[in-house]
Amino acid sequence: MIDREKIDKLEQLAKLIRYYILASTTEAGSGHATSSLSATELMTALLFGGIFRFDINNTGHPNNDRLIFSKGHASPLLYSLWASAGKLTEEELMTMRKFKSPLEGHPTVAFHYVEAATGSLGQGLSIGLGMALNARYLDKLPYRTYVLLGDSEMSEGSQWEAIQVAAHYKLDNLIGVLDVNRLGQRGETMYGHNLAAYEKRISSFGWETILIDGHSFTEILNAYEKAFSVSGKPVMIIAKTIKGKGVTFLEDKDGWHGKALNKVELALALKELDTVDTSLRGDIAKPEDLWPGKKIPQNVKGVSYQADKTVSTRKAYGNALVRIFPQFPDMVVLDAEVSNSTYAELFKKAYPDRFFEMFIAEQNMVGTALGLSRRGKIPFISTFAAFFTRSFDHIRMGQYSDSHIKFIGSHSGVSVGEDGPSQMGLEDIAMFRTILDSVVLYPSDAISTEKLVEKAAEHNGMVYIRTTRKDTSLIYSPDEEFTIGGSKVLSNSTHDLVTVIAAGITLHEALSANEELKKAGIMVRLIDLYSIKPIDNETLKKAAIETKAIITVEDHVAEGGLGEAVKSSLADIDIPVYSLAVRKMPRSGKPTELLDYEEISKNAIVKKIKELI
Amino acid sequence: MIDREKIDKLEQLAKLIRYYILASTTEAGSGHATSSLSATELMTALLFGGIFRFDINNTGHPNNDRLIFSKGHASPLLYSLWASAGKLTEEELMTMRKFKSPLEGHPTVAFHYVEAATGSLGQGLSIGLGMALNARYLDKLPYRTYVLLGDSEMSEGSQWEAIQVAAHYKLDNLIGVLDVNRLGQRGETMYGHNLAAYEKRISSFGWETILIDGHSFTEILNAYEKAFSVSGKPVMIIAKTIKGKGVTFLEDKDGWHGKALNKVELALALKELDTVDTSLRGDIAKPEDLWPGKKIPQNVKGVSYQADKTVSTRKAYGNALVRIFPQFPDMVVLDAEVSNSTYAELFKKAYPDRFFEMFIAEQNMVGTALGLSRRGKIPFISTFAAFFTRSFDHIRMGQYSDSHIKFIGSHSGVSVGEDGPSQMGLEDIAMFRTILDSVVLYPSDAISTEKLVEKAAEHNGMVYIRTTRKDTSLIYSPDEEFTIGGSKVLSNSTHDLVTVIAAGITLHEALSANEELKKAGIMVRLIDLYSIKPIDNETLKKAAIETKAIITVEDHVAEGGLGEAVKSSLADIDIPVYSLAVRKMPRSGKPTELLDYEEISKNAIVKKIKELI
Repeated sequence: MIDREKIDKLEQLAKLIRYYILASTTEAGSGHATSSLSATELMTALLFGGIFRFDINNTGHPNNDRLIFSKGHASPLLYSLWASAGKLTEEELMTMRKFKSPLEGHPTVAFHYVEAATGSLGQGLSIGLGMALNARYLDKLPYRTYVLLGDSEMSEGSQWEAIQVAAHYKLDNLIGVLDVNRLGQRGETMYGHNLAAYEKRISSFGWETILIDGHSFTEILNAYEKAFSVSGKPVMIIAKTIKGKGVTFLEDKDGWHGKALNKVELALALKELDTVDTSLRGDIAKPEDLWPGKKIPQNVKGVSYQADKTVSTRKAYGNALVRIFPQFPDMVVLDAEVSNSTYAELFKKAYPDRFFEMFIAEQNMVGTALGLSRRGKIPFISTFAAFFTRSFDHIRMGQYSDSHIKFIGSHSGVSVGEDGPSQMGLEDIAMFRTILDSVVLYPSDAISTEKLVEKAAEHNGMVYIRTTRKDTSLIYSPDEEFTIGGSKVLSNSTHDLVTVIAAGITLHEALSANEELKKAGIMVRLIDLYSIKPIDNETLKKAAIETKAIITVEDHVAEGGLGEAVKSSLADIDIPVYSLAVRKMPRSGKPTELLDYEEISKNAIVKKIKELI
Repeated sequence: MIDREKIDKLEQLAKLIRYYILASTTEAGSGHATSSLSATELMTALLFGGIFRFDINNTGHPNNDRLIFSKGHASPLLYSLWASAGKLTEEELMTMRKFKSPLEGHPTVAFHYVEAATGSLGQGLSIGLGMALNARYLDKLPYRTYVLLGDSEMSEGSQWEAIQVAAHYKLDNLIGVLDVNRLGQRGETMYGHNLAAYEKRISSFGWETILIDGHSFTEILNAYEKAFSVSGKPVMIIAKTIKGKGVTFLEDKDGWHGKALNKVELALALKELDTVDTSLRGDIAKPEDLWPGKKIPQNVKGVSYQADKTVSTRKAYGNALVRIFPQFPDMVVLDAEVSNSTYAELFKKAYPDRFFEMFIAEQNMVGTALGLSRRGKIPFISTFAAFFTRSFDHIRMGQYSDSHIKFIGSHSGVSVGEDGPSQMGLEDIAMFRTILDSVVLYPSDAISTEKLVEKAAEHNGMVYIRTTRKDTSLIYSPDEEFTIGGSKVLSNSTHDLVTVIAAGITLHEALSANEELKKAGIMVRLIDLYSIKPIDNETLKKAAIETKAIITVEDHVAEGGLGEAVKSSLADIDIPVYSLAVRKMPRSGKPTELLDYEEISKNAIVKKIKELI
């Protein structure tokens, strides 16, 4: 039996929270009041019912329970909970949605009690999965991760990716709370109030499910307690709720999604709430003071390759992971069922406890990596460059969570060859360039790959590294240094006519072109633009001043790629920039045939230069 | 009882097909032989067992059954089937994976018997859904759609999006064939040979499931017959198969994914096959000669807006759909649960039979649209611009299927305001620009939106239209004409100092800036670049020659956006191009505050111009 006094206090707190939700959204003039009201009891019970264990004065405590609002639009509820916990004043709460307030329309990490930015639906469960994975397999701590889910967002495929992978990893420390309030944005959801539909689907994937009335504190508290007793599988609490609960004229009504009450409506609503004790504060239980084992970074040996052997940059990536892990003991490696192609498998063999198979589910892989990143890990995640497009929305959201995920896309460009266009990453540079403060690296040989993987591990932020399928020869010696934002001038004279800028596979084509041109007495400056973002403006500018034209060559479409990065860098300098890039519909064929076909090969470079001079 | 003679012939055909698979992959030196061998009986029975109804001399017959290889890597099987049907010679088959052959590594529509390009896993079921939706609700024809699925790809969330939506629309004309061969690329799948795991999960979503031995012709044929008797729900035939079936040293073995046999291995394998009758051909049943009702395009009335009223471009999109449908009776409209925000709801209200709710599942929406497009429809599909990033992989694949989907992304840019960054489309222009031959349009007022929606409907290809949340004033009169690849010069004199190029919301800022500058006696050329791709090089060039600098202004990140499109267009002309774009981490706030904060507002434009002159 749960004692009456406890329930009474929770009821009083829920009233206070409803008041905060309604008042703050009305003050903001927008916001999702009704979606917040439906989950009020679920979250009030969690935080203030003795379930959640969190040191409110130390958000960074490694054994804090974690709470993610996957239904990010219920942010008024989230903020109101922390106001009720005494961590926001009513005045601060009233800044919600205003410019420069940390209380944004959808949660971002600008507010310290937000574990990860949400608001694009269907991402929270994957993030939670990453945090639960961390607790169970990495930090080995007993904290639990809770994810508040909306019913409407259950139609996102990413949810089912997370559901299957969480079950696969037997994460009984992951508890989903599904707020089935029946109504989506534009009307009823696919399953309405049919809780059994959710139960059937979710349990079929191996989750424990608990069905409850989401407005009964007794049922809610019992459900959490029951969830604690489940072993070897994650738990979904499926709660029947009423959208707009607590305000008669909002309850279960269509047309109120994402709308705030006007002042007259607010007055009416508050009347219904009756007396609210604004001095009331809820208590949150403290976590056990447990910490993960300390890991001491070790020195690692340098890069070593036989100078006359060819090796693919994707293989060098795998080698690098194995080599540098002792130096970066927070590293974790994930791969989406292609580890034998991306060479993440080398790491898996060396450090099986730090590798997680994510199966063919790229969205969840990125979400999981975000969760791991937010728990202090350095996730290196890999798939074919083409298939990262699958998780663009998750990548995009990653930038609002201050994350430091390292993305490695193999099989870039038409040089993939026979497998054909579906397997060719041709949009990946453009995609990763759009992310604010991102780093985009494109090494051309094993040495530069190894060095840049190291730089990626050191760098505090999101990094994309593009690797190539084909074996390529070494360009650099093992003591060459590479920096984020750097470049290498590989050919340089006082009478260079034209500058050729390439990276990755096309750098090898440019080197061959340069040999041929040299023989013909044509001097060309050649730049390895291995850091596409940030870009080495100084070196580019110098080349622009000292030569008559620039030719960029990339195994990527022209739009948003290396060529446009160069054009942006030199936009205020008078120099023509010609871009050789993938412009024809690619197809199957030998890599060399395709490089020629797309006019990004040695031959194309020579031809273009001869045209220009 | 199925007669012995039929089974005998199917067995002989399966042998022939295995021979083709093995010989063609060895000839190619690569390709997925083992993944083809596992599904050989499943597909042989379908095509040549009297199940499939298809006029092999008229691939365009509207009542042909449709077959999609979602596991596109089994293309050797697909091509071998059509060789066995007499539509490819052995010689042609041996061109597989070679440059310029229509038989690409993964299927593309270069080969006429391919319904849609596949190879990025987990997309075929959505495409099939679109075709089945077309059969049931639009063309009202009895054809069936079959989708061959791999077990490994079932981990993609997009599969579960398709599974739930197909059940929602009660598509009993959609039959999935799940080839459970236990092995993925790098090892065992999540569920291995546990067929019950798939049955439980798929049936929980309301599908009929049939479990069979995927190498028994009797069981397979019975399964198809049973599938025909199911009513009101889609059917999944879940088949236990052996990867590499038919060749002892390949069967159920790891390490053979995506590998061809060498010549010695091939000889060994063919020995096992025993006598193969290469003159044997399989017969495919003909479909009933049924055609959909003919629709005659009607003239529609022109655009009409009150000149002094403000109206958002998103609303104008909805208006345009309703207005032009009679002229384009093949139009279909889909939306991902935000039709009240994108204004697709206006069309839904006017033509409910042509609107399909796709719920919050953007990947499946794009796949479904591709299926509809391949069946001759003109799909207009909408969600927030930000959420199209969710389906980038599907969009990317769309270009290899010669599709003509129209994508409409609302809520673009920081001008979304209070809802915050998660809801702001800031990467959409870059994303859609990367698609080869794509069209990217960004209208600024209701008139241009209406006109461009019309152009999009006419255009044969993929088109993206970016709309804005805010109400904006009218810029154009109803008789103004807009073309794909066009632009409008809104301010022009013989002594313009600088050219300002904007589109959408920033055009309004630029217009205000122009007013202010004019008062200060500063003449500026102002261009509405409503067609970002293709781009109006002629007008830009003229401006570049006639003015001293160009300033681009966009409510989008700098990378891959309008600014870089302009830079690419003018890369060989000596003029500085300054790009005002979203460069700071966006946040919640009033639209005007955010435009100022990102320095893309009227104030920022005026400031920049004053700096320059």
